[in-house]
Amino acid sequence: MTLARPLVARLLERGETVATAESLTAGLVCASLTEVPGSSAVVRGGLIVYATDLKARLAGVDPALLAEHGAVHPEVAAQLAEGARDRCDADWGLGLTGVAGPDPQDGVVPGTVHIGLAGPGLRDVRTHWFEGDRGAVRTKSVRAAFQLLTEHLT
Amino acid sequence: MTLARPLVARLLERGETVATAESLTAGLVCASLTEVPGSSAVVRGGLIVYATDLKARLAGVDPALLAEHGAVHPEVAAQLAEGARDRCDADWGLGLTGVAGPDPQDGVVPGTVHIGLAGPGLRDVRTHWFEGDRGAVRTKSVRAAFQLLTEHLT
Repeated sequence: MTLARPLVARLLERGETVATAESLTAGLVCASLTEVPGSSAVVRGGLIVYATDLKARLAGVDPALLAEHGAVHPEVAAQLAEGARDRCDADWGLGLTGVAGPDPQDGVVPGTVHIGLAGPGLRDVRTHWFEGDRGAVRTKSVRAAFQLLTEHLT
Repeated sequence: MTLARPLVARLLERGETVATAESLTAGLVCASLTEVPGSSAVVRGGLIVYATDLKARLAGVDPALLAEHGAVHPEVAAQLAEGARDRCDADWGLGLTGVAGPDPQDGVVPGTVHIGLAGPGLRDVRTHWFEGDRGAVRTKSVRAAFQLLTEHLT
């Protein structure tokens, strides 16, 4: 991951940490960040909330929100980001939920991905519609998560 | 990951689920399993416990054990596996702790990896000394985790 190295470097400079709560990427964001030697100083860890009930149980997403809108919703991504930040005691939290495919989920088309960022006094969510197969959608999601955090660090 | 597909198929046949608690692989085991379409029926999620304190906080590893032996110890891997199984409500839990390198950690040489498996009435831990760089150690760890679970499913 080309973006991982400068992102880790930027966090090191700022003395800040990051954590993730990942659904469709299932750990790939955190795994990609920790490819970088020395990342242990800035990466706290994360929550892999692949099953819908774990989004509430592990990350503290509102169960009523999940019941009403399903797991693939911008507010879910925002609450995942906040849950990651809170439960892992990090400065920044990234939350990802979406449909990697090949099948739709809760009527949402594959490629739809919501990425949330939570930070000191900050909350941002972006929605993407990625093209490509399951692997491509996941890889593009990781890159977009890195871009979102990078944008807020510069 | 060549082993992921048959492992997911075997779990589907048995109607069983899996969760992970990962340190050095930081989500790579769960991310590799969920590369397989249809894996959502068997993969619950996981805990990425990169920072030592998260091993206790998220996965319930005994803080006294971590204080006495550090994070890279077979008993830590066993407790991570049990924590993953319990906190993610899965039939099987995989726990990984080790030193990916390039530097030693708590006096433990890079390549040292402990992998724990917790299941119904079962607890197993294997220790490996992998050769290669950071990426190779992590990839070999994922493969060894898949092999350990596969062994107990056949």
